[in-house]
Amino acid sequence: MSIDLEIARKATLRPIAAIASRAGIDEEALEPHGKYKAKIGLDFVAAARAQRPRGKLVLVTGINPTPAGEGKTTTTVGLSDALNGLGTRTMVCLREPSLGPCFGVKGGATGGGHAQVVPMEDINLHFTGDFHAITSAHNLLAAMLDNHIYWGNSLGIDTRRIAWRRVMDMNDRALRGIVSSLGGVKNGFPREDGFDITVASEVMAILCLADDMLDLEARLGRIIVGYRRDGSAVTAKDLKADGAMAVLLRDALSPNLVQTLEGNPALVHGGPFANIAHGCNSVMATKLGLALSDVVVTEAGFGADLGAEKFLDIKCRLAGLAPDAVVIVATIRALKMHGGVKKAELGREDVDAVRRGMTNLARHIENIRKFGIKPVVALNHFTSDTAAEEQAVMEAVTALGTDAVVCRHWGEGGKGAEGLAKLVQQRLAAGDAAFKPIYADELPLADKVRTIAREIYHADDIVLGAGVAEKLARFEAQGFGHLPVCIAKTQYSFSADPTLLGAPSGHTLPVRDVRLAAGAGFVVAIAGEVMTMPGLPKVPAAEQIRLDEAGMIEGLF
Amino acid sequence: MSIDLEIARKATLRPIAAIASRAGIDEEALEPHGKYKAKIGLDFVAAARAQRPRGKLVLVTGINPTPAGEGKTTTTVGLSDALNGLGTRTMVCLREPSLGPCFGVKGGATGGGHAQVVPMEDINLHFTGDFHAITSAHNLLAAMLDNHIYWGNSLGIDTRRIAWRRVMDMNDRALRGIVSSLGGVKNGFPREDGFDITVASEVMAILCLADDMLDLEARLGRIIVGYRRDGSAVTAKDLKADGAMAVLLRDALSPNLVQTLEGNPALVHGGPFANIAHGCNSVMATKLGLALSDVVVTEAGFGADLGAEKFLDIKCRLAGLAPDAVVIVATIRALKMHGGVKKAELGREDVDAVRRGMTNLARHIENIRKFGIKPVVALNHFTSDTAAEEQAVMEAVTALGTDAVVCRHWGEGGKGAEGLAKLVQQRLAAGDAAFKPIYADELPLADKVRTIAREIYHADDIVLGAGVAEKLARFEAQGFGHLPVCIAKTQYSFSADPTLLGAPSGHTLPVRDVRLAAGAGFVVAIAGEVMTMPGLPKVPAAEQIRLDEAGMIEGLF
Repeated sequence: MSIDLEIARKATLRPIAAIASRAGIDEEALEPHGKYKAKIGLDFVAAARAQRPRGKLVLVTGINPTPAGEGKTTTTVGLSDALNGLGTRTMVCLREPSLGPCFGVKGGATGGGHAQVVPMEDINLHFTGDFHAITSAHNLLAAMLDNHIYWGNSLGIDTRRIAWRRVMDMNDRALRGIVSSLGGVKNGFPREDGFDITVASEVMAILCLADDMLDLEARLGRIIVGYRRDGSAVTAKDLKADGAMAVLLRDALSPNLVQTLEGNPALVHGGPFANIAHGCNSVMATKLGLALSDVVVTEAGFGADLGAEKFLDIKCRLAGLAPDAVVIVATIRALKMHGGVKKAELGREDVDAVRRGMTNLARHIENIRKFGIKPVVALNHFTSDTAAEEQAVMEAVTALGTDAVVCRHWGEGGKGAEGLAKLVQQRLAAGDAAFKPIYADELPLADKVRTIAREIYHADDIVLGAGVAEKLARFEAQGFGHLPVCIAKTQYSFSADPTLLGAPSGHTLPVRDVRLAAGAGFVVAIAGEVMTMPGLPKVPAAEQIRLDEAGMIEGLF
Repeated sequence: MSIDLEIARKATLRPIAAIASRAGIDEEALEPHGKYKAKIGLDFVAAARAQRPRGKLVLVTGINPTPAGEGKTTTTVGLSDALNGLGTRTMVCLREPSLGPCFGVKGGATGGGHAQVVPMEDINLHFTGDFHAITSAHNLLAAMLDNHIYWGNSLGIDTRRIAWRRVMDMNDRALRGIVSSLGGVKNGFPREDGFDITVASEVMAILCLADDMLDLEARLGRIIVGYRRDGSAVTAKDLKADGAMAVLLRDALSPNLVQTLEGNPALVHGGPFANIAHGCNSVMATKLGLALSDVVVTEAGFGADLGAEKFLDIKCRLAGLAPDAVVIVATIRALKMHGGVKKAELGREDVDAVRRGMTNLARHIENIRKFGIKPVVALNHFTSDTAAEEQAVMEAVTALGTDAVVCRHWGEGGKGAEGLAKLVQQRLAAGDAAFKPIYADELPLADKVRTIAREIYHADDIVLGAGVAEKLARFEAQGFGHLPVCIAKTQYSFSADPTLLGAPSGHTLPVRDVRLAAGAGFVVAIAGEVMTMPGLPKVPAAEQIRLDEAGMIEGLF
């Protein structure tokens, strides 16, 4: 059994009503899911948002991830517990884990050590069913689309120009490309189709960006499912699918309340991937957290080039949010990998490698400043770190004119992140964050991609694949030119090449395809080989997962 | 808004803990899902079954369904409420509705009028997530199967002989036949595949037949996913998928507690279709009900030819259960349709048509007797029924040597089914049920199908399609000859032709294909054109479903 799981199982959880009461949530507003999870009613959410002043927003992001692990979620939880420990009323807002990857590579997504949200097994498995509801709503639209064509296609959809795939919350490469409707007259018209993983669904993005139920339904209606021969769009509303989809998502739109190991309230809601979608928890949960607390600590997926950029340029822009502080998480081990050290060699002190790897962290610091915010660095401590290595990071960060602090929340819980919490409090007290997105709404779509590529990825330019320029021109002609762009790219590098670690420059960003997510309200630009449906490894973690004799889950973490 | 929904919404529901307490379930054993639904912990279920004496089992079945509606679920609920009203401690055990059909044709599956289980909207939508868990477990096995082949196929599976399709809880004809793994080397080896609806999944059948968690996992391991070139079987256990599937199903195996409109406890758990699967609620729930109550009232899907036959020959045989009484539900309107009246003409009195349609009911009575049980008839009252029509039914039933009673639970709740309840009490007091299955375990598989065809469907013989005899011979050679058979057939007729109403004789039953469900423990024989994945109608109910301004669901029922 992993140490994380052992710690989580030893914890004595408080009843969810007690956690809610601490957070200022009426028991009447709770829809319990078991004893330690609850959904928070939408009426309460609306009332809280209307009545209470808004707290401060802290974003936790990271350097480019490596196999060494960075502990971004762990730091998000640890910082929140530390702030609560210091008497600052704080809510942590996280994404829900996706079920599919659980069966691929061992590991959950609920933090680690003494900085976790619990009950971890529930959260990592079906949780409160939100992803299942998203899968159902997405696939209902697909079924209604093919059904419409089957019964005569009165909307005149060009079956070669269908823009709505199906989804499943599973790592299943066999479903990436399929031909559907085979078997003769009664099964419809055969066509090319495929499945994405649920976290890549536009419905997931919509759920996470919707401001309330009405907004959710309106966004669902705007989803473009395909085009006619004349290029005009057919929407979910044209298919009359938006109402039923909203009904399927009604409960899923309610934020989920759980607790940290230290008994502080946590909202875990929504979970788009940050490499293929916008990668942040829901606007509903973030705004509820801001209404209930003085500080909300939330994370964005993967490195700051993907997660933070999208958090700032998509979520904050569309939801009218502005972060008051940004924390960048790094580890000595990950910096060493960016400095060229192999995973097997990470146990050995290597100050030079740390210095070389600092290029990655330095660039993320520089990038975040471009958004008008001075970040602070959380150096997430591992036992193999040496004083000399830590010293090298501190010096480098200080030379960049910002602050870093070593955190030990994995081993010590909130207490171990007190230094970080005090640093964040200082930044909040300074109140000098002046958030601005990296590009203006008015910029042409290709120039938005180019701006991110140059300013954030430090590429020389972008290269558009066959037909991409034409697609962007069509999106603009149809009135979608003002939308932000969501770049799907590998998380491992600033570039589209996952092997280029550190801080590559001078590369070009290849944009293979673009997709309009009119309901979510952004244009997806797919850069390089990133997959919207993962596969399983040769020996999937699923092979080790089972219930032990006491009915406890074995092998999941 | 439908009258059913109006009545359900007007009801004041009791907190689920109060319902549990009435049923003798410790509050500690409850995993609440909202305020009015709960799962019952497996430890409690095991303890209750071990400690308490077993109550009596009453099966509610029906004549062949027609578009006029019969009200089998309604009668099951009404009878249970009536028995409770008479002081007999009774539990009603129902199946969970499937999400897919909700979006096809308007209508739920939670009873009607004053005889419903509530909260009806929750139960008809995601409920406690059981079907989503089944979908996930089923598709994880499919993903692991294709993944195994992708990484080298060390088990030597013949990709032309794969026996495990994928599932979705959706009516989606476009997925009936697909080619998967298209797109080149990184997506695997293209092959023919397809989706069934979740209620047709063998995992659903396994969940419903499993006696406990260990039995569930063992059954999952026995699932046959495909065959090698030499005809030998490859199982889920060979793929090491059984443990992870069991983990995904752990919560789903816990029975769900809700309440009737009269505040009596109801277990709603499991939901295989009765035309393409075995069509009964779970063994777990039935046995828990029998441990908690003096009487369990449960239903089997569709007409007695499908649902009751499978309840008796599959569920009772495999779970060691024996019904103490059987109720056959009929309506004047449905009998008139079996007597040749069109739906539009049902409002007009037609005693002769009732008499003609009685052939259908008479045959079901005769069939149930073959299982060693004397059934009683519940004539579910509609306002258009006339005294002369009712008289005709009563006379005909009396002439057959059994009893019928007119029920008005739709309009009057339990009170309206008191006559039926008293009749059932008499049957239970008589204690003369001597259940025996219609065929012996030892009979060859084809002869089991033939026995059902002749004894229950009154066919002259069966005709096996191309390759079916060979498949059956292989199943027998592999040691599965002792299994019962589950016939997938249209629900509208005793025959495989849905247009043959009344009581057809002399037909032949065409067996198009057979599938081995080694985990569930039966052989599926597909007769005629029955579909394992439904489609949506030209104007799906989904088009009318939406949330109204108050956030209430519109158009679902």
